[in-house]
Amino acid sequence: MIAEIITIGDELISGNTIDKNSAYIAQKLFERGCVVTRITSVGDNVELIRQAILESLARGPDILIISGGLGPTHDDVTMYAVSLAVGRPLKLSEEALKWVKEKYEELYKKGFVDTPEINESRKKMAYVPEGCVLIRNEVGAAPGVLINHGKTKIFVLPGMPSEMKVMFEKYVLLQIRAKPMLQRKFKILSKDETMIAEHLTEVAKKLDVKIHSSPRGFGKDAYIMIILFSETQTHIERARSELEKRGLKLVPID
Amino acid sequence: MIAEIITIGDELISGNTIDKNSAYIAQKLFERGCVVTRITSVGDNVELIRQAILESLARGPDILIISGGLGPTHDDVTMYAVSLAVGRPLKLSEEALKWVKEKYEELYKKGFVDTPEINESRKKMAYVPEGCVLIRNEVGAAPGVLINHGKTKIFVLPGMPSEMKVMFEKYVLLQIRAKPMLQRKFKILSKDETMIAEHLTEVAKKLDVKIHSSPRGFGKDAYIMIILFSETQTHIERARSELEKRGLKLVPID
Repeated sequence: MIAEIITIGDELISGNTIDKNSAYIAQKLFERGCVVTRITSVGDNVELIRQAILESLARGPDILIISGGLGPTHDDVTMYAVSLAVGRPLKLSEEALKWVKEKYEELYKKGFVDTPEINESRKKMAYVPEGCVLIRNEVGAAPGVLINHGKTKIFVLPGMPSEMKVMFEKYVLLQIRAKPMLQRKFKILSKDETMIAEHLTEVAKKLDVKIHSSPRGFGKDAYIMIILFSETQTHIERARSELEKRGLKLVPID
Repeated sequence: MIAEIITIGDELISGNTIDKNSAYIAQKLFERGCVVTRITSVGDNVELIRQAILESLARGPDILIISGGLGPTHDDVTMYAVSLAVGRPLKLSEEALKWVKEKYEELYKKGFVDTPEINESRKKMAYVPEGCVLIRNEVGAAPGVLINHGKTKIFVLPGMPSEMKVMFEKYVLLQIRAKPMLQRKFKILSKDETMIAEHLTEVAKKLDVKIHSSPRGFGKDAYIMIILFSETQTHIERARSELEKRGLKLVPID
């Protein structure tokens, strides 16, 4: 199962915010055997978002997660760009509007907003592409959506991590049925990645595991972190003992 | 001036590492008036890297920064993918090999590696696309390159932040001549983004500034962060006072 992620926001491409959502989403998907092949970030620009979505859809991932740009302000244009990309006009959803109203009433009661009334900006969040499935946002105001588009399930979620994470875990993950991919991290206490590169290549080929290695610093505290990936624990253990037979000392991390 | 960033590494798309390099690069470029329009992350896969590069080149950015996958291990395939994308075969660079040798001699003298000798893995880092300009890596071993490809300057840099940053600041930034884009961050102590959305839209249109806004949390400590962007300080100040005339209280951040 293949997934792509598109994160949206001027704050991302201007470097004002580090995109932590993508790593969070990727890790959760990966644990369920859904491999992310590409992460794309674009700014709050309808045409650039639309293009990025169309390109992703052309590559035909099973899952496309889009996060960011669902809020009430002038630069939140994601839902409109999605509607253009999938050819489904935006329509006011009475159900979504009800949720938005309920949320602002709740926020008003708590003293978090000055009025519970639905102005144009708030109402905007209830416009969603025709024929989509709504995803409730329990933390914030903007609902998300699921759109079944050909073979691709497109999930559109807010960019605020606290909102996105709850919706992702309570809704998106339940929709994903894939064979979990296992992974195990090790430290190799070798001073130098170049000496072990060939062993890693050979073992990865021979034993049907994927091995990622990355050096962590030079110097006396330097080590190589490796991650062994496979669908079964047996494959991972086999790769581990093969590497140890070759003289590499693997210390488990976590 | 338009730039794109491609970051490469299985650790990024599996979510094991948060891509902080992109935000760093984007911010530095932005300060020099070079706007990043897209950030792409792909894994250590020759074909997927090549495709991502070709797609970026087709969009014709002035600058393309590629970071990651230059090391000595089996999964460091970026330079090969770059060579395929730009149609320049990899060739052993005697100059690059000299640098790699000098680096391992230095590391050996410091006791950081067990031998200064150049094995195949180490030698691999000296293969670069034909006709490129080498960028020295003073911190680590793998050199970077600059390739002038049509209208696009392609910079290929390591993914280790400590190496990438030095090369980026000492080399890449010096090659970029654009009109600096100024930015200023403010807090708006309003409880609710929806009430100010219209003011922001109107002021952005009227006064030729770009305004990014994002809510930071709900609740009593909530505020709206806004960033005013413009090529001149005058434009930013004008937008600020226009917003304050409209009753919004702007508190500078930083």
